[in-house]
Amino acid sequence: MSMNTFGHLFRVTTWGESHGPALGATVDGCPPGVTLDPAMLQEWLDRRKPGQNKYTTQRREPDAVKILSGVFEGVSTGTPIQLMIENTDQRSKDYGDIAEKFRPGHADITYWQKYGIRDYRGGGRSSARETAARVAAGGVAREALKSLIPGVEIKGYMTQIGPHKIDRDRFDWDQIEQNPFWCPDATAADEWATYMDALRKSGNSVGAVVEVVARGVPAGLGAPIYGKLDTDLAAAMMSINAVKGVEIGEGMNAACLTGEDNADEIFMGNDGQPVYSSNHAGGILGGISTGQDLVVRFAVKPTSSILKTRQTITKSGQAAEIITKGRHDPCVGIRAVPVGEAMMACIILDHLLLHRGQIGENRGKIG
Amino acid sequence: MSMNTFGHLFRVTTWGESHGPALGATVDGCPPGVTLDPAMLQEWLDRRKPGQNKYTTQRREPDAVKILSGVFEGVSTGTPIQLMIENTDQRSKDYGDIAEKFRPGHADITYWQKYGIRDYRGGGRSSARETAARVAAGGVAREALKSLIPGVEIKGYMTQIGPHKIDRDRFDWDQIEQNPFWCPDATAADEWATYMDALRKSGNSVGAVVEVVARGVPAGLGAPIYGKLDTDLAAAMMSINAVKGVEIGEGMNAACLTGEDNADEIFMGNDGQPVYSSNHAGGILGGISTGQDLVVRFAVKPTSSILKTRQTITKSGQAAEIITKGRHDPCVGIRAVPVGEAMMACIILDHLLLHRGQIGENRGKIG
Amino acid sequence: MSMNTFGHLFRVTTWGESHGPALGATVDGCPPGVTLDPAMLQEWLDRRKPGQNKYTTQRREPDAVKILSGVFEGVSTGTPIQLMIENTDQRSKDYGDIAEKFRPGHADITYWQKYGIRDYRGGGRSSARETAARVAAGGVAREALKSLIPGVEIKGYMTQIGPHKIDRDRFDWDQIEQNPFWCPDATAADEWATYMDALRKSGNSVGAVVEVVARGVPAGLGAPIYGKLDTDLAAAMMSINAVKGVEIGEGMNAACLTGEDNADEIFMGNDGQPVYSSNHAGGILGGISTGQDLVVRFAVKPTSSILKTRQTITKSGQAAEIITKGRHDPCVGIRAVPVGEAMMACIILDHLLLHRGQIGENRGKIG
Amino acid sequence: MSMNTFGHLFRVTTWGESHGPALGATVDGCPPGVTLDPAMLQEWLDRRKPGQNKYTTQRREPDAVKILSGVFEGVSTGTPIQLMIENTDQRSKDYGDIAEKFRPGHADITYWQKYGIRDYRGGGRSSARETAARVAAGGVAREALKSLIPGVEIKGYMTQIGPHKIDRDRFDWDQIEQNPFWCPDATAADEWATYMDALRKSGNSVGAVVEVVARGVPAGLGAPIYGKLDTDLAAAMMSINAVKGVEIGEGMNAACLTGEDNADEIFMGNDGQPVYSSNHAGGILGGISTGQDLVVRFAVKPTSSILKTRQTITKSGQAAEIITKGRHDPCVGIRAVPVGEAMMACIILDHLLLHRGQIGENRGKIG
Repeated sequence: MSMNTFGHLFRVTTWGESHGPALGATVDGCPPGVTLDPAMLQEWLDRRKPGQNKYTTQRREPDAVKILSGVFEGVSTGTPIQLMIENTDQRSKDYGDIAEKFRPGHADITYWQKYGIRDYRGGGRSSARETAARVAAGGVAREALKSLIPGVEIKGYMTQIGPHKIDRDRFDWDQIEQNPFWCPDATAADEWATYMDALRKSGNSVGAVVEVVARGVPAGLGAPIYGKLDTDLAAAMMSINAVKGVEIGEGMNAACLTGEDNADEIFMGNDGQPVYSSNHAGGILGGISTGQDLVVRFAVKPTSSILKTRQTITKSGQAAEIITKGRHDPCVGIRAVPVGEAMMACIILDHLLLHRGQIGENRGKIG
Repeated sequence: MSMNTFGHLFRVTTWGESHGPALGATVDGCPPGVTLDPAMLQEWLDRRKPGQNKYTTQRREPDAVKILSGVFEGVSTGTPIQLMIENTDQRSKDYGDIAEKFRPGHADITYWQKYGIRDYRGGGRSSARETAARVAAGGVAREALKSLIPGVEIKGYMTQIGPHKIDRDRFDWDQIEQNPFWCPDATAADEWATYMDALRKSGNSVGAVVEVVARGVPAGLGAPIYGKLDTDLAAAMMSINAVKGVEIGEGMNAACLTGEDNADEIFMGNDGQPVYSSNHAGGILGGISTGQDLVVRFAVKPTSSILKTRQTITKSGQAAEIITKGRHDPCVGIRAVPVGEAMMACIILDHLLLHRGQIGENRGKIG
Repeated sequence: MSMNTFGHLFRVTTWGESHGPALGATVDGCPPGVTLDPAMLQEWLDRRKPGQNKYTTQRREPDAVKILSGVFEGVSTGTPIQLMIENTDQRSKDYGDIAEKFRPGHADITYWQKYGIRDYRGGGRSSARETAARVAAGGVAREALKSLIPGVEIKGYMTQIGPHKIDRDRFDWDQIEQNPFWCPDATAADEWATYMDALRKSGNSVGAVVEVVARGVPAGLGAPIYGKLDTDLAAAMMSINAVKGVEIGEGMNAACLTGEDNADEIFMGNDGQPVYSSNHAGGILGGISTGQDLVVRFAVKPTSSILKTRQTITKSGQAAEIITKGRHDPCVGIRAVPVGEAMMACIILDHLLLHRGQIGENRGKIG
Repeated sequence: MSMNTFGHLFRVTTWGESHGPALGATVDGCPPGVTLDPAMLQEWLDRRKPGQNKYTTQRREPDAVKILSGVFEGVSTGTPIQLMIENTDQRSKDYGDIAEKFRPGHADITYWQKYGIRDYRGGGRSSARETAARVAAGGVAREALKSLIPGVEIKGYMTQIGPHKIDRDRFDWDQIEQNPFWCPDATAADEWATYMDALRKSGNSVGAVVEVVARGVPAGLGAPIYGKLDTDLAAAMMSINAVKGVEIGEGMNAACLTGEDNADEIFMGNDGQPVYSSNHAGGILGGISTGQDLVVRFAVKPTSSILKTRQTITKSGQAAEIITKGRHDPCVGIRAVPVGEAMMACIILDHLLLHRGQIGENRGKIG
């Protein structure tokens, strides 16, 4: 497969299955001199950790991360950083049925068709549990970014759950940490709670939209043509389990705009940097950052493991009904928020290193 | 930059600027034994060629492709194929104003901020003209695919222009080649013509949505985690000029669905292959193809070169007004259709080679 | 750094330091269906293990390898295989002096100059201990090769230690496992023992030449121009600690030959395959395997940690004398033999997968 | 094949066959702002050009290089630079015999076995003519290096031809350009002329050793483990046609040294930089440059196209005799000198960009 790595200079390879002894990330390319300890990474992992409220899977994993290499006396040395998270709360017996039947909407069937073998326990490699490793790696990226461009801030939140969207007029950064949905709209959060309670009881699941914003990213990161910042962000987000769509700035809605509407007009700011009248571009033009907020959105499909009966087939080709017991997220989009943040952090760091290597420093001064 | 390449085993590197002597693609990894001549590639290039109707730029380029290497006596040898398209109809004088001012919504400013130098003539490297090279490379991929999995068919079309969408109930494959918009809905095509006539006269531009479908792709292509088929398709489409959003199957709409709705139920077909009740997944589960149609959609923003006056700044930081004369596409999405097809062909071929190398042949038989 | 990976489709990333908690290899791209258990890998690790005789370092490490992912019920699943070896016998106090002074001929000074920080304990990342991870990964490659091209056999041995070379006329495959030097010449092995006893007592060290041969590799592996089989083998061997020269077939001696002498004449064998009068080419022509034995040789410089006093400087730039106590290999070349074998196995497997992906099967039949 | 590229951030892809319409290099990752014009590159190409004296092939190619992209008003823009060299003096009729028979010691047979098709005219892709593209790319690298680390100087020369070596005591940099062999020893050059005259008349060929030195390379370039500077240099040199061995510093002779002898002792220089008593290391320790001269050596085997009769087989498996007429280099090592220099320039530039990206600036100050 050899496809478990992303990044150009800051490279992250994740490994591990849902019910194996451990999973983790091999992080290669972290600059030397970054202060790192497990507690720093744990902070981010705790945000993604299962079992924190009734809207996420009830599997209880401490997700305690160990740093096995690449850090000496609390500082990165520039050598590969191995991050390991041991699995502790596997209940493999829950998955007996799944060994033989394919869940509709799940990777069960395609893994089987591709490999002819699969670790079916908990979804094996295709489990969303893999994203814990990404969050750990993202923690390394955040610390490296902090030392290289101090002002960068990366924040994710949910803007939609099922058919229910936030009201942008009620957007409040301070609300995001105040509810189990990372929702920036307190009123919407209440509505979502009611909606999710009913959904969870019915054994069904639902999709969601996550938005991730990065502030303080300097202009000039990214590169034409196939290393565009938006190209790498799109790939990063699409690689997250269950994601089916990715948008930058206006995203799919860009189709509806005229050129006149879409043009973010440019002015000179008081600090001698360009400022823009709007941010339809989501902070990226021609694949290169403008210095505005980077705005990425992605849609997460509903969890395919549900308590509803669906028609399927077995490995031997027999028709069958399936209903998935076990502990699953009724809306896996909730836990995708810290994952989206982590991917954003990794991609920005990677492009910062690339830019520094290939260009040196920002070359085109305006004014 | 070293970012002008995509693909793992079938690798395409594009080069060239809008107003330089030539542009092209270095195609490395085409299997040996594929019948190839310039006329085969020309067929696809002619679909993208500018100046074909009043809805695309009036620049007249023959876009004649030459094969400089890698083909011997009409057959690929397995060595790199160099495809060159000479530029003939540059009118660089049209772009004088653009040397100093940045077009809002265009890469002008970010190229300048990144590199401190840019070939401003016709957008230089950031011009959509670069996509001619992709289409040529896509022609090579199509011929290689034809010899490896004969049944594959790849087709792109527009589903939306500005606010106007097609009606899926009127979808007709045979209409796609019958109108200047690659529109599968004849009624919509008429409406679009009226809408575009008015828009073009006003000097404005508009966005669009393009959908590309691949039929006959076998199950098992793609790979977890960062080499997912959808990850690579998302990156491929996002790398096309002006694209701001990418969707697989249900795309952003997946957020609205419940798990029960989203589950494409599985049955055994008469030919011993699985069949599905629906295709919310767009032909990909867990990053791996299911054997259903691959369905990818992307939104193209409106051309930023418009005859409308916008506020901007100059290289020296002075406030300025800009209005872009010259020959531009009022809806660059139209010409993006063959580009999307080309990217789809390249990505499928690449994953076919990867699968063959890493897995050998499909291993998991069902039934 | 992001430079700790090798391979195209079979990709190995090593991680870990000499005195950290663990080291290992992330192996991505092993085909599914390969039987694998820790004992199979342990067999190869035991060949490289320190402390096995008086000619290698007296550090005692069990080098017990754990498989943390990618194997399910004793069979590879096609997902990343994480191999971990815990460090147990670190005596970090031995290295106090080295924290401040740079050993001549050692990476101490360059790591410091590059990174401004280094894990000096036992050489940190630059320690030959890193090669344990390669041997474990090589074990995976051997098992995969065994299932894909059953006849392949890979064997390494020493041909020179200090100024003492083997006599090719006394070459005996069966001797290789019979002496502590992996020496195919029993008489030379006796001489080497005497020589090494004296050297070890004097606290000095010495270089060596290792040769690795692979038999049964099919014709057609490798690729022009920068993915030549010999290019990848040269890089693989040069990446091993302390290696200063790499040769394919005649190697440096090719300079002395005329074209007439160097031409390995070709005949048809009884099995319908070409046979050759000689193997000056070392089994590779134009970067592609001929089907003959692959023959690679590399020179290992003497260990730089010696009991002899040498002039050096400290981190603060002061002149100093240095003498390295601690447990070191008097001839690190001895333990490089299994490492060379492991690298050969990985590179052959990688090129086998590449060939299968890009070409399908051998296309050019002769006769 | 997709193997025609080298480099991490400064990436060179060569393309083209000996007797096709053109060959060239796609250079991606050249920093912006480098002054470049075709004449600068031509200077290096002229050093490699065939037909310059009686010791190289009598094919007459102007090797005139065109820059098709990536340079605007004489300065690199940071976008891909396409370099094209048209072929003019092909005499394909000379090669009729070679279409059916395989030259011993040549890639004829392995290309056939791998691909089942080959452009046999002049060796097609396996021709040493491909190295013209490398020299052009190396010219770009030299100019970029000049702007980034002004003091770097890269120089190649021959140290051995057949059995005849230079005398290191007579080494004179100023002699290198004074004779047709790039020989730094005037006496040896005379001997070589006599030897080569006889060899050429007999229709035979011979091997050679080329040494390339880079001065002024800063300490800290390169990276453990698989991106070592010596690893990349070894791969670069081994990728040159006909190379069979690569050495760094002492090279294969390192096997003969004791640790005491091999230790390059370290002192502080008057400029506050470390100086060394010797350079057994060839300027690289642990894969990272020391700041000393980089010293790389490689052996080139004799040309396999000779006027001597050798036994071979045909494509159909029949025994045959072969004698190769046409215009060939009696010692292809001579023209490999500028190729080795070009590869050295590319690799140093690449590692300089990598270091800048991943580390920023030298971090470890001594003193």
